[in-house]
Amino acid sequence: MEPTSRRDFLRMTAIAAAGVPLARPLIPSIAHRATPTTSRQERKLGFALVGLGSLSTNQIAPALQKTKHCRLAGIVTGTPAKAVKWKAQYGIPDKSIYNYDTMQRMADNPDIDVVYVVTPNALHARDTIKAARAGKHVLCEKPMEVSTEKCQQMIDEVKKAGRQLAIGYRCRFEPHHLEMLRIAQQKELGDVRLIESAFGFSIGDPTQWRLNKALAGGGPLMDVGIYSIQSAEMIAGAYPIAVSAMTNKTDPVKFKDVEESMTYELKFPNGISASCTTSYKVNGINRTTAYADNGSFGLTPAFNYDGNKGWRSDNKPLEAPEVDQFATEMDNFADCIINNRPTSVPGEMGLRDVRTMMALYEAARTGRTVTLEGVRG
Amino acid sequence: MEPTSRRDFLRMTAIAAAGVPLARPLIPSIAHRATPTTSRQERKLGFALVGLGSLSTNQIAPALQKTKHCRLAGIVTGTPAKAVKWKAQYGIPDKSIYNYDTMQRMADNPDIDVVYVVTPNALHARDTIKAARAGKHVLCEKPMEVSTEKCQQMIDEVKKAGRQLAIGYRCRFEPHHLEMLRIAQQKELGDVRLIESAFGFSIGDPTQWRLNKALAGGGPLMDVGIYSIQSAEMIAGAYPIAVSAMTNKTDPVKFKDVEESMTYELKFPNGISASCTTSYKVNGINRTTAYADNGSFGLTPAFNYDGNKGWRSDNKPLEAPEVDQFATEMDNFADCIINNRPTSVPGEMGLRDVRTMMALYEAARTGRTVTLEGVRG
Repeated sequence: MEPTSRRDFLRMTAIAAAGVPLARPLIPSIAHRATPTTSRQERKLGFALVGLGSLSTNQIAPALQKTKHCRLAGIVTGTPAKAVKWKAQYGIPDKSIYNYDTMQRMADNPDIDVVYVVTPNALHARDTIKAARAGKHVLCEKPMEVSTEKCQQMIDEVKKAGRQLAIGYRCRFEPHHLEMLRIAQQKELGDVRLIESAFGFSIGDPTQWRLNKALAGGGPLMDVGIYSIQSAEMIAGAYPIAVSAMTNKTDPVKFKDVEESMTYELKFPNGISASCTTSYKVNGINRTTAYADNGSFGLTPAFNYDGNKGWRSDNKPLEAPEVDQFATEMDNFADCIINNRPTSVPGEMGLRDVRTMMALYEAARTGRTVTLEGVRG
Repeated sequence: MEPTSRRDFLRMTAIAAAGVPLARPLIPSIAHRATPTTSRQERKLGFALVGLGSLSTNQIAPALQKTKHCRLAGIVTGTPAKAVKWKAQYGIPDKSIYNYDTMQRMADNPDIDVVYVVTPNALHARDTIKAARAGKHVLCEKPMEVSTEKCQQMIDEVKKAGRQLAIGYRCRFEPHHLEMLRIAQQKELGDVRLIESAFGFSIGDPTQWRLNKALAGGGPLMDVGIYSIQSAEMIAGAYPIAVSAMTNKTDPVKFKDVEESMTYELKFPNGISASCTTSYKVNGINRTTAYADNGSFGLTPAFNYDGNKGWRSDNKPLEAPEVDQFATEMDNFADCIINNRPTSVPGEMGLRDVRTMMALYEAARTGRTVTLEGVRG
């Protein structure tokens, strides 16, 4: 019954969707938007995937086949065998297959519009900057990077290139999370006062990069705890202004480099606070709950690729359609590029969350509440 | 739908019990214990209730009628009209009806064995000490008092009188909580690594003593947050050695004196940590969850007077019989007194939890993790 990888875990815990459609669509819908027709709208944007690990292989490449406005146009990999396999599977032309030393040649490849960075966290700046210098838009997986300095450098370089930078915050486009946001914003159960959110799993292979601080920047907080930060930010409608945290380590051999678990608290400028938990040690932590004046509502599970399930204390349904979250995220970014409008998940949001996570590590290390300036989200 | 009092809330959220009996009894059972027979075992101990508020009226007095080893023998009240009503309802003799000025005369009343202190938190020491000086055993409602100094004084005075002091931790005798404890102790789902626990409700009348810091010692943490501390202590098998906390206030008029909500973290000596939430602002916060190596288990709701409901991630039932928690608690204390064995919920446990709560308030005030010495629980 133990999942052997992070992906298996996310799949194992998925619950079959009820499939009841919402009365009104909540997903940013390209088809229904009244936008000026241009010739660019007709073509699909070419995406190059950088890093062909399990996320690219099992989620992003299949999702690209389901998008309306994107297509898999190129790959960047350091493993020649992967290049051969992907070329055969997806019919990628030789000219669009790169390694990390050659990827700057993308500058001469008009077939690639967007680079999707799916490498380990501490390589995101390297790959984003290369892509920006090649004149490409960049979609970068979360967490944005392992330091605020590197995040700022990414923002600066993409800006200098006149391109857009988005962070792979799939839940920002996930209909259950958007329904949570709607209930909070419309105060359907009154003002939200408290949030609880938790995401964790029992990590497998002790040699993987996620347990290597140099590559990952931290442990479960960086990898999955960030989802609780994002969820709380969505519901609170703000970024946290103060944080506290405690880490926990019961297996110092496996978790010699990064925290095993973390319990953490976020305080928002509007008085809302969030209590969060993340772990690489135990399964079944996958939930977000909002407590409002007239009732509570939440998702359990909240952060799976599919099968997230909503509930409301008034027993009304909290339902939303199932979508391919990666396809929706990529189509949204493509729509931003095509219509020249700013992404709702920009580098600045990624930077802010990295700043929050660095503050949480400082809080855990020093045993002190760490304050952050109160920028509205 | 809004409950108008704390008691209504606890009743409203109760879920009808499934009533499936456990294979083995988990409640400390007097009937099944092989103890030496003495004449004292035959008689019921006389309980005097001090403070005739809603808890005494709606829970404790009715519960006394269901006990095996206790009977309502006396009352202490500052309200003559209540004395008249209780005398009529329960047939209490005049000689066993006291006010706060006369209660020391209990020393001459052999009909009263135990004094159950149900007054506001900051009066517990006053009433406990009077009872001890009258030679009575004392059962004192949680939280024990509003300062560690007063708790220690209570312990010293009861000890000096050669009597027993127990704290009204009803969940220590509640079969669902005992089943949680059993699963944790027997490692049925492996070692517990993380705990989440939360208890809160939307408080009514803004003039009640629970919102007055001088009488309550604090807000929801003192009143209901203490249940999460107790639950985490039971599951972790220890007292916390370090705590951090943040308070939250969105309604500074109603909550001018005490915190509105608190998110808090407890770190235990065995590496386990707990993430907790308490509130006087919102309903529906009522849960305890343990995450272990091979699965998770919990109670939702966890802290009601009846209708607590268990679950396990392996889908095996987490069931337990429904009991009257106050009757069980009082019978357990009576059994301790009759058989001259120490209570499992002594003043020292109450003191330790008050120390933990004072540390949590200090952590919230200073923004610093506060350490506590690592006494095993």
